[in-house]
Amino acid sequence: MDIQQLVRELKTENRSKIVMLVADGLGGLPVEAGGPTELEAAKTPNLDTLARRGVQGMMNPIAPGITPGSGPGHLGLFGYDPVKHLIGRGALEATGVGFKLGPKDVAVRCNFCTLDAAGNISDRRAGRIPSEQSGPLAVKLRDIKIPGVEVFVEPVKEHRFVVVFRGEKLGGNVADTDPQRTGVPPLAPVAHDEPSRRTAEIAKEFVVQAQELLADQPKANGLTMRGFSAAPVIPSYEEVYGLKAAAIAVYPMYKGLAQLVGMEVIGQPTSLSEEIDVLEKAWNDYDFFFIHFKYTDSRGEDGSFPEKVKMIEQFDAIVPRVMALKPMVLIVTGDHSTPARLASHSWHPVPTLLVSETCRPDGLTAFSEKTALHGGLGHFQAVYLMPLALAHAERLAKFGA
Amino acid sequence: MDIQQLVRELKTENRSKIVMLVADGLGGLPVEAGGPTELEAAKTPNLDTLARRGVQGMMNPIAPGITPGSGPGHLGLFGYDPVKHLIGRGALEATGVGFKLGPKDVAVRCNFCTLDAAGNISDRRAGRIPSEQSGPLAVKLRDIKIPGVEVFVEPVKEHRFVVVFRGEKLGGNVADTDPQRTGVPPLAPVAHDEPSRRTAEIAKEFVVQAQELLADQPKANGLTMRGFSAAPVIPSYEEVYGLKAAAIAVYPMYKGLAQLVGMEVIGQPTSLSEEIDVLEKAWNDYDFFFIHFKYTDSRGEDGSFPEKVKMIEQFDAIVPRVMALKPMVLIVTGDHSTPARLASHSWHPVPTLLVSETCRPDGLTAFSEKTALHGGLGHFQAVYLMPLALAHAERLAKFGA
Repeated sequence: MDIQQLVRELKTENRSKIVMLVADGLGGLPVEAGGPTELEAAKTPNLDTLARRGVQGMMNPIAPGITPGSGPGHLGLFGYDPVKHLIGRGALEATGVGFKLGPKDVAVRCNFCTLDAAGNISDRRAGRIPSEQSGPLAVKLRDIKIPGVEVFVEPVKEHRFVVVFRGEKLGGNVADTDPQRTGVPPLAPVAHDEPSRRTAEIAKEFVVQAQELLADQPKANGLTMRGFSAAPVIPSYEEVYGLKAAAIAVYPMYKGLAQLVGMEVIGQPTSLSEEIDVLEKAWNDYDFFFIHFKYTDSRGEDGSFPEKVKMIEQFDAIVPRVMALKPMVLIVTGDHSTPARLASHSWHPVPTLLVSETCRPDGLTAFSEKTALHGGLGHFQAVYLMPLALAHAERLAKFGA
Repeated sequence: MDIQQLVRELKTENRSKIVMLVADGLGGLPVEAGGPTELEAAKTPNLDTLARRGVQGMMNPIAPGITPGSGPGHLGLFGYDPVKHLIGRGALEATGVGFKLGPKDVAVRCNFCTLDAAGNISDRRAGRIPSEQSGPLAVKLRDIKIPGVEVFVEPVKEHRFVVVFRGEKLGGNVADTDPQRTGVPPLAPVAHDEPSRRTAEIAKEFVVQAQELLADQPKANGLTMRGFSAAPVIPSYEEVYGLKAAAIAVYPMYKGLAQLVGMEVIGQPTSLSEEIDVLEKAWNDYDFFFIHFKYTDSRGEDGSFPEKVKMIEQFDAIVPRVMALKPMVLIVTGDHSTPARLASHSWHPVPTLLVSETCRPDGLTAFSEKTALHGGLGHFQAVYLMPLALAHAERLAKFGA
């Protein structure tokens, strides 16, 4: 069953507000046998209070055993089947630097590299050139002009940058030009299908002009291109759910992901507290708010259990400000688990809490992996979270008479 | 979502070992209201110890309410959608006697029958002719020669035997020739599609020659043919999971099922203890081991609760030998439930335990139907078991960036 299609048909409108609070990488693991997870170790009085009124469950972002990247993890949370709606690497990288991809765009992830006198790659990452040097070089490449197509170049970090070609009927199916080794020249861009032939020609021309512009550089005098990808075609929140949705995030990647599903990115917060300021100001203007908190994932990726615990406690501390706005539905979840013990994203399901007047209480009095396991939502796939939110917001009609 | 396809794309290789211990028909039922199941009644100190480190769940081999045969039950455990990958009855019967089916084979399940002077069936099972008499008759049929096709005949039991036709482009879609009643002659083999016409002709010729060879038999002077089926086309464990897999089993059926998914059948054990001997010897040569224990199912099918309890205790007793090998992931499960009270396979979900360093503990301290119900794996379909095993073995890459 395509649950999103069903929801699209059943959606109704009202004035209810839904808030989705995402603590990135929320789920964790004990460090020692018998010990608590990060969420269990954290003091979360506000979430625990909500647990008494809400309903919990264990959410699989994709499917049991599958570890999600940030792209698929968020698409799942937003209710889009992440396997059906693939985001190519180029598109994700462009999204990650806040570039708003349109339907005529093909995005490419590029690396500066060092070429020797014979044109062979001597360093695939241009000596990991620092961002202060590579940024201006990427900007310089904006001088490239190719007839019939707009070219955008965005610096990323160190040797990495993003190129977007915007034009009519450009295919995204072009092979990587990185030969994955040194001592050979970069590969020519090769199209894998008919609509991508023109993209490959454009990419070739881009490389020629870029090498001229970079000719006098000591390290970054060449480039390789990877992950060519057309912008994903994703129906918007408005279309699918009838929700006017806002995204509040600090990092460009999450703003970009929210934009892909038609959310409006609001404010320019630099902290969780500022994110809630933005929420408060915009409260009357939207139906749905996605609020992204990055640092639970960051400290998990760092492998720091105590720091991730602290981040969870910071996250808990802003909950009363959100509840003071009286959302009809509050969701607290993560896009995946990032156990400090593994210092990486993992496949473990994510404890999830939904709070609303119409919850059927599950008798739980705290919010954690241990409690979520016994919650009223059971184990469920992320794509069911939005339908559940809409139901509790009384925004879904009965199916059938 | 096709989870197996996703896993195929995400698989990575390492040197981890995965062991899947299958106690056939493991799940049970209480005999009396309030009483324990077989697994709950059994003393299983070793499994209970593992429960503290592992994570449990309730597995549906096919779907809630569906009772699996051995074929679909094992295909599900192996991660293949059992509804998509159907094994025809002929193919299953051939597999069950250890016949290794190839891509050019059509297998047929045959019954000896008794024909009267007019050629009508007087006994559909040839008086349930004992195996000692029917075996040599089946072997005699190996004299049948049909141009352009190889013919294999394998005795099964009593009136049953298997015929395999091997040749180019043989369809498997031929109707049964058993009229399901006496007083009429066997039906002629009728093809249901174009590629099966030749198979039907070959089957007709087989019957003609067989009746000549059997003409002087008092009971088994005829035959009927059922369940024509081409060998199922199933991608191998190597292809799908990147695992070099070994199967250790006593009974031909399970060896055959493992062979269908490309496992190598190793050793010739005659008991569970010998199966573990085989495991120990082969430990360095494979990534994945499927170990099949038959007698939990056999005693369940016999309707003997206390005997099934004993078998579970025997199964528990070998666990320390397996754990001494330090598999990165151990799975303990069954291919279906076989409650002694029902004396048959049943639809009840199967308690399943996964043990690995990266499990998120679920606080359980014993392994049973009662505990599995509250386990960290929740209720899940069998096809997710292999993805979970691979994830805990760190053999799956992140999905998306």
